Amino acid sequence: MAYYIGVDVGGTNIACGIVDDEMKIIARSKVKTNPRGRDGDPPDYAEILDEIKHAVRLVCDEAEIDPSAAHSIGIGCPGTCGNGVVEYANNLKFKNSPLMADMESEFKIPVYLENDANAAAFGEFVAGAAKGSRNAIVITLGTGVGAGIIIDGKIYRGSNCAAGELGHMVIVMDGLPCTCGGHGCFEAYCSANGLIHMTTQASELNPESIMTKMIREDGKVSARTAYKALKQGDPVGKAVTDQYVKYLACGIANAINIFQPDILCIGGGVCNEGDTLLLPLKAAVAERIYTKNSAKNTDIVICNLGNDAGIIGASMLFKS
Amino acid sequence: MAYYIGVDVGGTNIACGIVDDEMKIIARSKVKTNPRGRDGDPPDYAEILDEIKHAVRLVCDEAEIDPSAAHSIGIGCPGTCGNGVVEYANNLKFKNSPLMADMESEFKIPVYLENDANAAAFGEFVAGAAKGSRNAIVITLGTGVGAGIIIDGKIYRGSNCAAGELGHMVIVMDGLPCTCGGHGCFEAYCSANGLIHMTTQASELNPESIMTKMIREDGKVSARTAYKALKQGDPVGKAVTDQYVKYLACGIANAINIFQPDILCIGGGVCNEGDTLLLPLKAAVAERIYTKNSAKNTDIVICNLGNDAGIIGASMLFKS
Repeated sequence: MAYYIGVDVGGTNIACGIVDDEMKIIARSKVKTNPRGRDGDPPDYAEILDEIKHAVRLVCDEAEIDPSAAHSIGIGCPGTCGNGVVEYANNLKFKNSPLMADMESEFKIPVYLENDANAAAFGEFVAGAAKGSRNAIVITLGTGVGAGIIIDGKIYRGSNCAAGELGHMVIVMDGLPCTCGGHGCFEAYCSANGLIHMTTQASELNPESIMTKMIREDGKVSARTAYKALKQGDPVGKAVTDQYVKYLACGIANAINIFQPDILCIGGGVCNEGDTLLLPLKAAVAERIYTKNSAKNTDIVICNLGNDAGIIGASMLFKS
Repeated sequence: MAYYIGVDVGGTNIACGIVDDEMKIIARSKVKTNPRGRDGDPPDYAEILDEIKHAVRLVCDEAEIDPSAAHSIGIGCPGTCGNGVVEYANNLKFKNSPLMADMESEFKIPVYLENDANAAAFGEFVAGAAKGSRNAIVITLGTGVGAGIIIDGKIYRGSNCAAGELGHMVIVMDGLPCTCGGHGCFEAYCSANGLIHMTTQASELNPESIMTKMIREDGKVSARTAYKALKQGDPVGKAVTDQYVKYLACGIANAINIFQPDILCIGGGVCNEGDTLLLPLKAAVAERIYTKNSAKNTDIVICNLGNDAGIIGASMLFKS
């Protein structure tokens, strides 16, 4: 039995796991990315490197193996990761940080480094919803819209390891402002924040709706609010979710028209709505794709590894 | 010296060439796709197949070689081409037409079949503006917007050989109607027809402009009209070309954010404007890409093989 160590570096936590040959996580550890918890002062590379090392040692202790007995360590990290270096990661203050070399000199086994969205997509590809496909796209509808592209079984990185920014594909030129500084990006409409924005707007226009009452009771708007209102028969909730699905279908149809993958997987919190989201989405995408009449079209499914995709995908990066 | 036969099947003509090891076309032939010229009744597969065979024999006569002495025949054909079969080509009445097998049984040498936009992109990749790159995108701004994607030196076809429809990527949700039946596609704005539409609209709103006078004199609007007006100092011509470049930059920045290729080549009639088009386009794309601050960004250049890209790319399909 071989052991593969996977590390998922996030803005809040560093999650680590030991994965076996059957792609199961057999031990886990979790540490804070910023253990000192200093507000407004993100930790520097040296501090995070120490925490990553600490997480790896913890998980090996948990599994009662020596790190040197593992096959390799794979790390999924925010930002542009190429040639073992984190070129740039905005929320982590990394700049040309040699994470692969530093981890290899510590643990003396091969270390692989990849962008976190790509690593999670690779997890769904090797062990999750996209297993068995050859070309796959994984889109995560979270705070932002992340994406990973698998072509011919490998992560597609482009020429500067920054490819796959489907979230910053413009679907409404001159549309809503996006966190990237642009306007009209897929992310501006289809992230959880995009859905919250649509919900807030509709609530303001419909102060007597069930949805607005719900917001008053909850004291906040979340990405679940419109779906909760929909389930209570609120036409305003339905209008918001219809609008959300329309934008989502637009971006997903673009991805299909460009890539024609075997499978396109969507993940992230919004996907907890299951078929309530998926069925209208599939119908709307089918209307929009250029290959409507083709014998073979892309399957659209919901990711099934949840947060484990990041750890499993990272652990298998040696194959990527 | 080896000889490679390339065939570019178009709606009007079938252009054929013999290409040498230096990627030069050493002999050419051209026949009508529909020699009987029946209006409103497109020729069927058997008729076009005969014309393709005829074009190959003509070019071999011209070069004084026997077809069986050639290395291979490559064919670029409109429509979805997979496994040697034209699955579907709207304007040619093809449906699951076994073009590869029929040509191989005629000429007894290997035959390769590919979508025409992909073949032309491959031509630019092997011998034109994208030569020496690894990942390249070629976008043709013609009657429509065609595209070919080269990943790791190979044509990217997706899982159903229909990938690469960048022209039908929506950039303005619910925008202008497109020939595909959708709305807001890149093609609806950035094809020659898109530019003609913008020019016509601006002319109607500005009946006293230099551009409108030019249209009255020419008796028609073309994709060159706005650029001609721009060169005469017409602010209306400038506004139209600025608007066109804005949409074009939006679609091209999307392609770069998704693929991060080494190079992105644009071709087609509009590109005859040269730097008048290219320089403002590059500036506008630079503003829009997600990797503004990256050390390495995609080069944007104009294709340099013109119509020969189709023949040269087809002739080299055995490498694709």
